Amino acid sequence: MAEPFHCDFFGRLFMGHLGNHMLNAADFHSTDRGFGMKYLMTIQRSWVLSRLAIEMEEMPTQYTKFNVETWVEGAMRFFTNRNFRVVGQTEQGEEKVYGYGRSVWAMIDTETRQPTDILAINDGALTQWIEKEKPCPIEKGGRVKMSDNAQFVRTIDTHYNDVDINGHINSVKYIEHVLDLWPLNWYKEHQLKRFEIAYVAEAHEGDQLSFYQEQTGEQEYCVRIVRTDGTETCRSKLLFV
Amino acid sequence: MAEPFHCDFFGRLFMGHLGNHMLNAADFHSTDRGFGMKYLMTIQRSWVLSRLAIEMEEMPTQYTKFNVETWVEGAMRFFTNRNFRVVGQTEQGEEKVYGYGRSVWAMIDTETRQPTDILAINDGALTQWIEKEKPCPIEKGGRVKMSDNAQFVRTIDTHYNDVDINGHINSVKYIEHVLDLWPLNWYKEHQLKRFEIAYVAEAHEGDQLSFYQEQTGEQEYCVRIVRTDGTETCRSKLLFV
Repeated sequence: MAEPFHCDFFGRLFMGHLGNHMLNAADFHSTDRGFGMKYLMTIQRSWVLSRLAIEMEEMPTQYTKFNVETWVEGAMRFFTNRNFRVVGQTEQGEEKVYGYGRSVWAMIDTETRQPTDILAINDGALTQWIEKEKPCPIEKGGRVKMSDNAQFVRTIDTHYNDVDINGHINSVKYIEHVLDLWPLNWYKEHQLKRFEIAYVAEAHEGDQLSFYQEQTGEQEYCVRIVRTDGTETCRSKLLFV
Repeated sequence: MAEPFHCDFFGRLFMGHLGNHMLNAADFHSTDRGFGMKYLMTIQRSWVLSRLAIEMEEMPTQYTKFNVETWVEGAMRFFTNRNFRVVGQTEQGEEKVYGYGRSVWAMIDTETRQPTDILAINDGALTQWIEKEKPCPIEKGGRVKMSDNAQFVRTIDTHYNDVDINGHINSVKYIEHVLDLWPLNWYKEHQLKRFEIAYVAEAHEGDQLSFYQEQTGEQEYCVRIVRTDGTETCRSKLLFV
């Protein structure tokens, strides 16, 4: 359900909370199939979200019930693609598709922080679950191209509530911080049609995050987030309608 | 379930997310009984959270399932008291109580913003649901006393994601901002035993919020939040162990 405090001033679910639901769906789906985070922890491995793209026809509104479906589209040695479909019902009881998501995950060794072979887990258990045929009619997230002309917008501090159990700035909080670059009134006139984020390097509590923004199309914007030491932590692309 | 991205670095559910679950429980409970927000909107009324106190023996940890129970303890013309119990199961299948909450609510006329008579709604429907006998063994939240010696800590800006559907800074976000006054490492050594917040005046998008902190006991701290125009928006009291 689109919970009241997870909805914006206009009664639409915040994109950050939708992202959180997708990450949960990914976690539950993989746990049920023997390659979830909990099991991976025991063998010194972890999934790392590399890219997330969400494209919505419409956002669920306050109190609306919806499901987040997820499936594995493909897997290579170092990356796997996982898709999402957000679906609810019309008042007439018919299926209503709100939108789709695409994500790319790597697996790392939690000691060395190096990428590891996904297909080595449980004799390639993941490959049993690949669903190539299930459609996900949104574009894959590509490289987010930005020029040196991106404008500095603001720097924020990170705190206790920004940090996840791995000690990194929470993937969902980045989504919130990016959307916070636009004023409330912007969302009165615009709907966020597509949101893309590529995670490049991790940031930690106390890191300052600086946001640079560039308009790259009529309703298209790119955002670069840079941490205190000048390293880029992530890059995001937004399409409004 | 204590969802992974709703847990802190130490794997414990963030207090803000627990607060959100309590507010949802209150909303669902009152909706089911004919005095929920959705109905109130149709008659130009709204519940306004005035105080919230949460006291926990223990915080649910990552992936733990728990229930939030809620009941009305009492109702007067302009205020009603609603309590909460957070309960799960031990590994042996026995009931495990994590903690309790207490809240105080007023009802306002959404046009005049003035307090209105709670007992006038549906011929006092709420009074049918008062459970005086159900125990809630935590202290009521009292007036949070602070001296003029409270130290200024920081000022933050508010943005799109801070604003709820009423156009006010989201009650849950205040909880996060207050807890963010302590560094991550503080929570390694300390558990938040009791959290109290009294909402005094509303803040809006674009308001800057300034935080003043005062130590009022060995492990007890009070926090005052003041908006741009100098008006106090809320006051909070925290007890760590």
